[in-house]
Amino acid sequence: MSRATRAFKVLISHPNVPAPALELLRSRGAETIICKSVPPSRDEILQKVPGVDAIYWAHYQPLNAGILDAAGSQLRCVSTMSSGIDFVDIPEFQKRGIALGHTPGVVKNAVADLAIGLMIAAGRHFHAGRTEIERSQWKIEQINWMMGQEIRDSVIGFFGFGGISQAIAKRLQCWDVAKIIYHTRTRKENDGDFKAEHVSFEELLQESDFLVVAAPLTNETREKFNGKAFELMKRSSVFVNVARGGLVNQSDLHDALTTGTISAAGLDVTTPEPLPANSPLLKVPNCVILPHMGTQTMKTTIEMSLLAANNILNAIEGKPMIRPAY
Amino acid sequence: MSRATRAFKVLISHPNVPAPALELLRSRGAETIICKSVPPSRDEILQKVPGVDAIYWAHYQPLNAGILDAAGSQLRCVSTMSSGIDFVDIPEFQKRGIALGHTPGVVKNAVADLAIGLMIAAGRHFHAGRTEIERSQWKIEQINWMMGQEIRDSVIGFFGFGGISQAIAKRLQCWDVAKIIYHTRTRKENDGDFKAEHVSFEELLQESDFLVVAAPLTNETREKFNGKAFELMKRSSVFVNVARGGLVNQSDLHDALTTGTISAAGLDVTTPEPLPANSPLLKVPNCVILPHMGTQTMKTTIEMSLLAANNILNAIEGKPMIRPAY
Repeated sequence: MSRATRAFKVLISHPNVPAPALELLRSRGAETIICKSVPPSRDEILQKVPGVDAIYWAHYQPLNAGILDAAGSQLRCVSTMSSGIDFVDIPEFQKRGIALGHTPGVVKNAVADLAIGLMIAAGRHFHAGRTEIERSQWKIEQINWMMGQEIRDSVIGFFGFGGISQAIAKRLQCWDVAKIIYHTRTRKENDGDFKAEHVSFEELLQESDFLVVAAPLTNETREKFNGKAFELMKRSSVFVNVARGGLVNQSDLHDALTTGTISAAGLDVTTPEPLPANSPLLKVPNCVILPHMGTQTMKTTIEMSLLAANNILNAIEGKPMIRPAY
Repeated sequence: MSRATRAFKVLISHPNVPAPALELLRSRGAETIICKSVPPSRDEILQKVPGVDAIYWAHYQPLNAGILDAAGSQLRCVSTMSSGIDFVDIPEFQKRGIALGHTPGVVKNAVADLAIGLMIAAGRHFHAGRTEIERSQWKIEQINWMMGQEIRDSVIGFFGFGGISQAIAKRLQCWDVAKIIYHTRTRKENDGDFKAEHVSFEELLQESDFLVVAAPLTNETREKFNGKAFELMKRSSVFVNVARGGLVNQSDLHDALTTGTISAAGLDVTTPEPLPANSPLLKVPNCVILPHMGTQTMKTTIEMSLLAANNILNAIEGKPMIRPAY
């Protein structure tokens, strides 16, 4: 035990939270109350949450007044084990003065790798290529078959320029890209690290050869990528979304891909999730789709789990959370 | 016309050779005789080849004594539009003193992008993930689902350390890898550029988290990656092949993937090509397979086509080829 703390209770919403995080909490005095259901059951959570001092929210179901009411007035803090927190009713936390943390920052490495994987997989027709093998349509003798986009000499555009976008930009430093541009509401102070240039949303659309979406879902960003936006993009452009499906009008994206308005898309996130197996998007050869697994590496998952635990420990010990969500 | 050259005839074995290469040849005095069949027809080639001075071989069918005999004794030079030349009977060229060129080097950029795409797609379960969406098995609530390998802190191993491997190593300079190692018959002089370390074949197998095969297919390298080799690899390792399917014993690879001897594979090349749609490898969820499209970008294809044309022009003009194959 690294320092003395009075005993306190933490509800853990999911049985698969990595052991290092549970061990850290216990080493600092936590009694961990672990929910057993997979997928998590709201009934089980509501039954186990009364009387806890902290909640470790390790899944993506709504975290709102119902949970906070059931916990009781002694509840002091909650941390999600996620970067995005669009499933959290933040005003409820603010109103009650309950500390809320999340785990951005540490997710950047795993998501950045996956995003570059999606840029290449979409730009180089990984899904279409495999589909053609399975259909016995491998056209080995056609020089022009499956011509893809190289990252070299391309303009890489980011919607959002936080940790994930910067981790991608960092990785692309030795790829001989033409230019890195980004759109955010305000210019970033650290964009010089990557020779990145702040541009308007319209310029981002018009200039990007690869456009990567890595920004929070808010009322302002919801369906920002719609038919009108795709119309402004290059016909050769590759669109990648590793943020949230809600930033995209998915029906408009489907149309943009099938009519050649843009060249290809790589999506780690969709609307809804899980995406139904009969989604028209799954029939589009130039669309690579993954089941929201941007953070799914053991290294990053452990880092996220430890950050969530440290958010809670800080709050319990009267200090600011490491990554407060408001 | 950039310089005066007597008129000469070049057979072009494929109708889709990029226009810039044909224009370059013609600007220097070539009469281009273009085969029209797709896939190329050996009959058409044998019919059109007699009397030519040069052959521009833009496909992967056997290039051997039969073609050289049909061309006639005035034939001076041939260039493939490919890096690998395992389909060429090189001793026949040596015996006859006919210059032979190919297009290595320029392919490196397109193949390096694709190889990194395969490292990520295989290491992060892109195919398995999609398959689960299509089967309505997206397990959104399981924290441990689809856990993949990050490139950060990994040992990246190369079998072969020529242009493609070095282009990959260059791109990974800002990825915080643990170490870059490679195995070739002899240590490379330029490995210091990438802080790469020459290791034995056994060390390559034992230490690599990601093992990338980018070496020519020769009698020495054939089926170098067999059951015995896979047994020496880490169970968490990711195997990527962007060279030739023949370097791998594919049945042994299938077993290694299905028994958990290694974690995943990403293949741009297979045996045979095209891979039959009923290949058992297509049923393996932890195997990403592409239809040999490593060089399939317009930028690289044009660069290859110009290099092949310049190989021929040099030979016709009495100079060494830019990239001679022997």
